[in-house]
Amino acid sequence: MYSETITKLINQFEKLPGIGHKTAVRLAFYVLESPKEYALEMSKAIVEAREKIKFCSKCYNITENDPCEICSNAKRDNSVICVVENVKDVIAMEKTHEYKGLYHVLHGAISPMNNITASDIKIKELISRLSDDEIKEIIIATNPTVEGEATAMYISRLIKPLGVKVTRIAHGIPVGGDLEYTDEITLIKAMEGRREI
Amino acid sequence: MYSETITKLINQFEKLPGIGHKTAVRLAFYVLESPKEYALEMSKAIVEAREKIKFCSKCYNITENDPCEICSNAKRDNSVICVVENVKDVIAMEKTHEYKGLYHVLHGAISPMNNITASDIKIKELISRLSDDEIKEIIIATNPTVEGEATAMYISRLIKPLGVKVTRIAHGIPVGGDLEYTDEITLIKAMEGRREI
Repeated sequence: MYSETITKLINQFEKLPGIGHKTAVRLAFYVLESPKEYALEMSKAIVEAREKIKFCSKCYNITENDPCEICSNAKRDNSVICVVENVKDVIAMEKTHEYKGLYHVLHGAISPMNNITASDIKIKELISRLSDDEIKEIIIATNPTVEGEATAMYISRLIKPLGVKVTRIAHGIPVGGDLEYTDEITLIKAMEGRREI
Repeated sequence: MYSETITKLINQFEKLPGIGHKTAVRLAFYVLESPKEYALEMSKAIVEAREKIKFCSKCYNITENDPCEICSNAKRDNSVICVVENVKDVIAMEKTHEYKGLYHVLHGAISPMNNITASDIKIKELISRLSDDEIKEIIIATNPTVEGEATAMYISRLIKPLGVKVTRIAHGIPVGGDLEYTDEITLIKAMEGRREI
């Protein structure tokens, strides 16, 4: 129905997450009907972003300069490392403006179902950072999913013998949440994580 | 929160129709985390499509060769022109495999609200095609909206004095539709368009 060039463009859009065939067709036609400058700018932005952005050699967050802004910031507390699954988790954490330590991005979680083992994610890179005397605490902030919990457990077993404190962020009822509508697992976690007041 | 390069990419994605900020962020990160080849291919597909695709000088449909495949196809009935608003309308019509005539893409509809006048769309180009002796019928298939109806009326008033038959596609209850759930305007159109059986 569409010419080869258009089909190619539609296929490229279809590869994006959450973009089905109909949306891909709509996006492709939008690009075709928009001014030439827009198509060129968009194409340039994609290539530039992909070429300029690399991973920080210390924390594996994405960055344009190595080491990244957080790792090279003297004001950050470099005795704490918060371990997260993805780059977007760093951004979520940074938005709180509360955490002042460093990060370590694993780029995934251990998942035997998807053939992702401990060696596929940045765990050994985390361990090698511990040789630094200054690090006193590792906060594991992987997601509260089966994979995230397995990864947290695996990392804590590796690190504890090295004499570094390992903590896990709290899981419980979200602020503004309602006990009545909270699922059982979260309630169990909330009870387990109770503290004296 | 994001570096300049990433922000630029997010902004480009945000310009696409139906893509809000959160989706744009998701798409940008997908591109950043995907293999370099994908980013390059996508970027190439955008530029190529935008550069190769032009408008047919006869019907203003998009095409890689001028005149387009439909206009240059000897098997098509070149005594009938179906007038549509957009390129996608041509595709919708072609999917029926029933219509064998030619097309004329207006690239919009008359809309005083949006400052789109008759001279902004391809109406004079349609009129100039009528000098061809062979054309016997103009089927106006603009959308059944205020703008589409106004455009249909405008074109029919221009063409009728030239002695060419002008028709409008039927509007009524869609096949599989339910009278009970049909809006009033469609019902009125369906009654108006009734035919003896």
